[in-house]
Amino acid sequence: MTPGTDGPAPRRRGRPPRTARATGPDARTRILEAARTEFAERGYDKTSIRGVAKAAGVDAALVHHYFGTKDEVFAAAVEVSFEPALVLPEILEGPRQDLGERLARYFIGVWENPVSRAPMLATLRSALTHEAAARVLRGFVLRRLLERIAAELDVPDPTFRAELAASHMVGIAVLRYVIKAEPLASAEPEKIVAMVAPTLQRYLAER
Amino acid sequence: MTPGTDGPAPRRRGRPPRTARATGPDARTRILEAARTEFAERGYDKTSIRGVAKAAGVDAALVHHYFGTKDEVFAAAVEVSFEPALVLPEILEGPRQDLGERLARYFIGVWENPVSRAPMLATLRSALTHEAAARVLRGFVLRRLLERIAAELDVPDPTFRAELAASHMVGIAVLRYVIKAEPLASAEPEKIVAMVAPTLQRYLAER
Repeated sequence: MTPGTDGPAPRRRGRPPRTARATGPDARTRILEAARTEFAERGYDKTSIRGVAKAAGVDAALVHHYFGTKDEVFAAAVEVSFEPALVLPEILEGPRQDLGERLARYFIGVWENPVSRAPMLATLRSALTHEAAARVLRGFVLRRLLERIAAELDVPDPTFRAELAASHMVGIAVLRYVIKAEPLASAEPEKIVAMVAPTLQRYLAER
Repeated sequence: MTPGTDGPAPRRRGRPPRTARATGPDARTRILEAARTEFAERGYDKTSIRGVAKAAGVDAALVHHYFGTKDEVFAAAVEVSFEPALVLPEILEGPRQDLGERLARYFIGVWENPVSRAPMLATLRSALTHEAAARVLRGFVLRRLLERIAAELDVPDPTFRAELAASHMVGIAVLRYVIKAEPLASAEPEKIVAMVAPTLQRYLAER
């Protein structure tokens, strides 16, 4: 038994992990935040598990332990912006006639929050420039987020419709935050929600 | 007077321009096609007027003569994919109740055509990674394309609504051609048109 390697970190040879910050209930959160920042600032290609570990002040093995491969870290870092486990059930379980409005407000909120906007834009940038990042988005994020929404829908082709809804929100983000097309870039969030909500409502709740 | 410098090319010292291909009714078209290819293959940042001129087999001065700055070449190269002068009047002047359907079919058609899709994706990629390219899209393309559409609309906030419509088409392109999210990536174009047309119709023709 090596002292100082308790907690979920796999044991490794050589230098012992920095136990002061390496474990505990906050390590996972710290890794996620570090991953979000690293991917946002460096892009998919230049981010490494080692860099994420360093920024989080933990051992790389702990990053592997919690999240697995780099692609899985990326997926988790993207997903944390949406907090789907926290927010989606509430959105999906509310009155069906306001589903489009709740989803529009939720997505605009994710984009309006600078903390989640930066990594989201970085994700989009990575997906447009690196097939590996596109593949992760396709495989992990879309499957988890959109199929979760689609599973709750009572319409034909629910995944197709959820993708159309998502595509609209992605496109709004591109024109509003990246290209900064006016007047969309300066419009009040609620003005956008008011126009977009009936679109999402039709895609997700009307046959 | 220097012989061999007739036509629209500004005169330059030293080696005379390659007159055989340098002028004539096709030079402008050749420059546009070369610009489209160069921007698509190299991105906004790495494309130069000189490179476009070389690819088109003309003198760089002729590129300047026809299009002005690099930004203006970029805008023209993007715009040629939409052929707005050719197609937009027809779309906008048709029956108002089918406007959304005509526009949806037009945009999907531009994206479905590999000849225009590659430069469009390159444009999007450039706009997401280079503020200069985003600025050009914002200034030239959106102004020319969207305000042309907006000018024909009889709704409040026509530019805002035209931007919402455009955002949807941009987002569909990202999910369908870049992230390749299924089933959207493999859906028949007409299936997308059928779902999206009422959205564009509401944005562009309903108060």
